[in-house]
Amino acid sequence: MSVPLPILYGNRESGHSYKVRQTLVLLGVAHEYRYVDLQPPRAERRPDFVAASPYGEVPVFIDEDGTLAQSNAILLHLVRRDGRLGGGADLDRTTQWLFWEANRIGFSLANLRFALRFAAEDPAVVAMFRRRTEADLDRLAQEFDRRPYLLGNTPSVADISCAGYLFFADQAEIDLGRWPSVGGWLDRLAATPGWAHPYELMDAKQAVS
Amino acid sequence: MSVPLPILYGNRESGHSYKVRQTLVLLGVAHEYRYVDLQPPRAERRPDFVAASPYGEVPVFIDEDGTLAQSNAILLHLVRRDGRLGGGADLDRTTQWLFWEANRIGFSLANLRFALRFAAEDPAVVAMFRRRTEADLDRLAQEFDRRPYLLGNTPSVADISCAGYLFFADQAEIDLGRWPSVGGWLDRLAATPGWAHPYELMDAKQAVS
Repeated sequence: MSVPLPILYGNRESGHSYKVRQTLVLLGVAHEYRYVDLQPPRAERRPDFVAASPYGEVPVFIDEDGTLAQSNAILLHLVRRDGRLGGGADLDRTTQWLFWEANRIGFSLANLRFALRFAAEDPAVVAMFRRRTEADLDRLAQEFDRRPYLLGNTPSVADISCAGYLFFADQAEIDLGRWPSVGGWLDRLAATPGWAHPYELMDAKQAVS
Repeated sequence: MSVPLPILYGNRESGHSYKVRQTLVLLGVAHEYRYVDLQPPRAERRPDFVAASPYGEVPVFIDEDGTLAQSNAILLHLVRRDGRLGGGADLDRTTQWLFWEANRIGFSLANLRFALRFAAEDPAVVAMFRRRTEADLDRLAQEFDRRPYLLGNTPSVADISCAGYLFFADQAEIDLGRWPSVGGWLDRLAATPGWAHPYELMDAKQAVS
């Protein structure tokens, strides 16, 4: 009897889904990527997803340990099991950066992009998300004066997570030229064997169904 | 030679600091609580805090494993070491809820309260935080139809984290009477031996210095 592959539900516009699939690819974890069309209302999305998803949101990851939502929780699950990409002695430091992402850049930039690209939002709200994004980039830029990646000399899920939405910076009307050390870090990440841009890795054509 | 106690830097208005100290108290971890006055600019705060804090923010926790920021990262560190309050077999589920808190109620309600109590913010931004807080409470309220606490029959750091800012709901002009199942959960938490309200637990008089 063959063991079923782990399943990832995701969507091409979801930087949070991308973080998980990029980690699975870099760890070499065989999995099924299942595409969720987010246009229909939550209750009308593909039934296997509606049944599995605790929040009606992507990503959702299913393996022999169970069903898990929240991209950064899935990343911690994967690196705790594997020990690589920040899951070993760095686990506390990894966890700290994943919560920084959840509170900061993964919030500010993701919401700024969403407001500009997909939603009609009050200009004051857009301006607030922009101020926060800029402050978060100022903070992040300081890290790369001292080391090439957030945890040291090699990439980890801390980088994958904090960089996730930055590959959509142009859609948020953010010019990364203002933060050259951040741009350099993204270039290093993009040169990692196995790395791919979100629209390449998350395309519906990449999915099994 | 005596081993130095772990140190927690915090402040009475910081629900994130409160989450950590409440967990330390419930786990029975002896520690030094050091009070940080947040009125002065970051560079002029107490020098031991400025030296220790990677982000200039509270909470910061220091023990034999090192220095850690981000309240939920500290909670995961504590329960991984201890095994209780969500650190055992529930660790993935705990982690999922802590990221839900970071993305949702710990963001929406904390920012709504901050805007109303401490900052001058555009009314459109306040309205956005209020809409998000209400949606997050709608979501949270569904949990307690099925179980008394987020992970089952006993409290965990998932509850401590998600409830943290809810004890300031009045300051955010949120009437919890609209979400009676949330109110019932907060009452159960408040009846836990060792539980204390943020202003009681985090008062400067509770600190060693």
